[in-house]
Amino acid sequence: MSELDQSRIQQDRVWMQRAIALAQQGQYSTRPNPNVGCVIVKDGHMVGEGFHPKAGQPHAEVFALRQAGERARGATAYVTLEPCAHYGRTPPCAKGLVEAGVAKVIVACSDPNPLVAGKGVEILRQAGIEVEVGICEAQAKQLNLGFLKAMATGLPYVRLKIASSLDGRTAMASGESKWITGVAARQDVQHWRAISGAVITGIDTVLADDCQLNVRQLDDANVEQIVQPKRVILDRQGRLPLDAKILDVPDTVMVMGPFRPELAKLGVIQLEVQSLDALLKTLKDFQIYDVLIEAGATLSTAFLQQHLVDEVISYVAPTLLGQSARAMFNAELISMAEQLRFKLKEVTQLGDDIRLTLIPSQESL
Amino acid sequence: MSELDQSRIQQDRVWMQRAIALAQQGQYSTRPNPNVGCVIVKDGHMVGEGFHPKAGQPHAEVFALRQAGERARGATAYVTLEPCAHYGRTPPCAKGLVEAGVAKVIVACSDPNPLVAGKGVEILRQAGIEVEVGICEAQAKQLNLGFLKAMATGLPYVRLKIASSLDGRTAMASGESKWITGVAARQDVQHWRAISGAVITGIDTVLADDCQLNVRQLDDANVEQIVQPKRVILDRQGRLPLDAKILDVPDTVMVMGPFRPELAKLGVIQLEVQSLDALLKTLKDFQIYDVLIEAGATLSTAFLQQHLVDEVISYVAPTLLGQSARAMFNAELISMAEQLRFKLKEVTQLGDDIRLTLIPSQESL
Repeated sequence: MSELDQSRIQQDRVWMQRAIALAQQGQYSTRPNPNVGCVIVKDGHMVGEGFHPKAGQPHAEVFALRQAGERARGATAYVTLEPCAHYGRTPPCAKGLVEAGVAKVIVACSDPNPLVAGKGVEILRQAGIEVEVGICEAQAKQLNLGFLKAMATGLPYVRLKIASSLDGRTAMASGESKWITGVAARQDVQHWRAISGAVITGIDTVLADDCQLNVRQLDDANVEQIVQPKRVILDRQGRLPLDAKILDVPDTVMVMGPFRPELAKLGVIQLEVQSLDALLKTLKDFQIYDVLIEAGATLSTAFLQQHLVDEVISYVAPTLLGQSARAMFNAELISMAEQLRFKLKEVTQLGDDIRLTLIPSQESL
Repeated sequence: MSELDQSRIQQDRVWMQRAIALAQQGQYSTRPNPNVGCVIVKDGHMVGEGFHPKAGQPHAEVFALRQAGERARGATAYVTLEPCAHYGRTPPCAKGLVEAGVAKVIVACSDPNPLVAGKGVEILRQAGIEVEVGICEAQAKQLNLGFLKAMATGLPYVRLKIASSLDGRTAMASGESKWITGVAARQDVQHWRAISGAVITGIDTVLADDCQLNVRQLDDANVEQIVQPKRVILDRQGRLPLDAKILDVPDTVMVMGPFRPELAKLGVIQLEVQSLDALLKTLKDFQIYDVLIEAGATLSTAFLQQHLVDEVISYVAPTLLGQSARAMFNAELISMAEQLRFKLKEVTQLGDDIRLTLIPSQESL
């Protein structure tokens, strides 16, 4: 590769990084739509930029093209996700780029959505626009893990949150657990809820903690502006009390359990009792592409043992609670061959606690 | 403080950092002596440097003064530990500095050794040399945690090593445990052994693993050059087999248990059965100032619950072994008030594992 090519690719990466940073600004508000950012560059200068802020509002390309105006003609557009090809709430962005007369479009990752899937790129190429796909692809994929997985497989991207002591305990035998992790770790959980379409928990957790599992505070965004996740309660015996705090905002509650007219009256969405993987498929049909599990050991262990978890967000507090305290993972394994092993994606210190981001290893699947 | 003073202190720190880096070169070989480094600076230039390499060989100041020669006159000496004041295997370094005619001595931390304890500084001051103590003190103390603690309190500095799964397990119920942590973490343990005067373990660990607990490989030093740690086995019932691999080098083995003539014949040091804190005091009397505990859960838990541990080196592997696997900490605690809490001193990634360095919290003592 020539030095000129290398320097051009270096430039492309810089602009795509900018587009990715823009996309990220929609991380709490675009659901169920993906996060997308766009930068338009002419003669080495940025002439337009934009990101998709919210479902129903224009796509990233529209904002960027508006800002660029006539300067878009002959320019290069950097887009984090393949431009759409279908008429939805907005006309297709691929057509918009053609009409604006851009000379080249650089795409970070293609859109596996069957309504797009290569068609966006096709429209551009047929109009004589040069298209490159794959610059900063891995990083751009991180923006939309849920959307991309759901489009490709029909299942949402599932994160499992666990907070435990160093010796793997989530509570004393009595249930006492306030507080194992510190303020910074507990605040961090709000981010993962806020990027999720749904938080799944079990009825025992709701009965024990009377928790709400909503987003109450974010470091870098106004909570009023975000799309709150659905709260999904697994309640096979219909034990959810009508005065549970989680029902304060009933229209974002979903309950999997026997049908109860009193819940229907409140506006709660009720799902029939089904297997965990069927439940995940159902949530995908509700356009829930990112799921966070915040549950007790039994439900967490079930999701893990059925290999339904894509990522574990594990908070570890520097404390020892002893062998009669409750185990975070209550499977009964006999040999090391049965262990559930992970790859360490990231480790971060949060106050006195640490957060591990773990991806299941292929070997243990 | 004037700008001139600030710039001078900044300079002092830079030279002391150099002295600390020199001291570190003796980390595996000076025992039972402390690690000490010395830099001599004249008119802004380094004219001599040295470190203490090994007990019986000259102290850091001697090497530095030799190199400086006549240039030491009127110079400033940076020493990581207060110069000694007593005639041991070598004449006192404080006198050496006086005779060389240095104008100023900057000391990182004073020596709590009753044979020195301020006397080194006193000799210098009486000779009209300007002395400053405390530059980079915290960092210099890290060089000699064991020596400093032993001199101040009569007890060695105790590190406890634990390797566990994410769910706090050290082995399957059957005892199967190869391998929970990866190569990098297991290699890292060698460093902690190599800076220790003794490794303590229980007879059950020796019987189960036929382990040697010696230093076999270091990333940054030749194993032939180091002082191997004593291996201390707690064997109250005298069960250590004479063909145990750990007895391949019997003169670095210490056994706490009933007296056995056959062990005495091998050259093994035998200690009478005593409490854990009495054992630590005894080890200090053998000039063992840094102790590493590598034992099973029962012995580790006993040291922890008796508050005899200064630092936990905790390796956590990203795997789940389930609730029937063996617990790393087998105390039976009832309420959160009994938890053993730590401050997180450091977190480091080692391959797919992490290493936490933890200091017991005052609150849980």
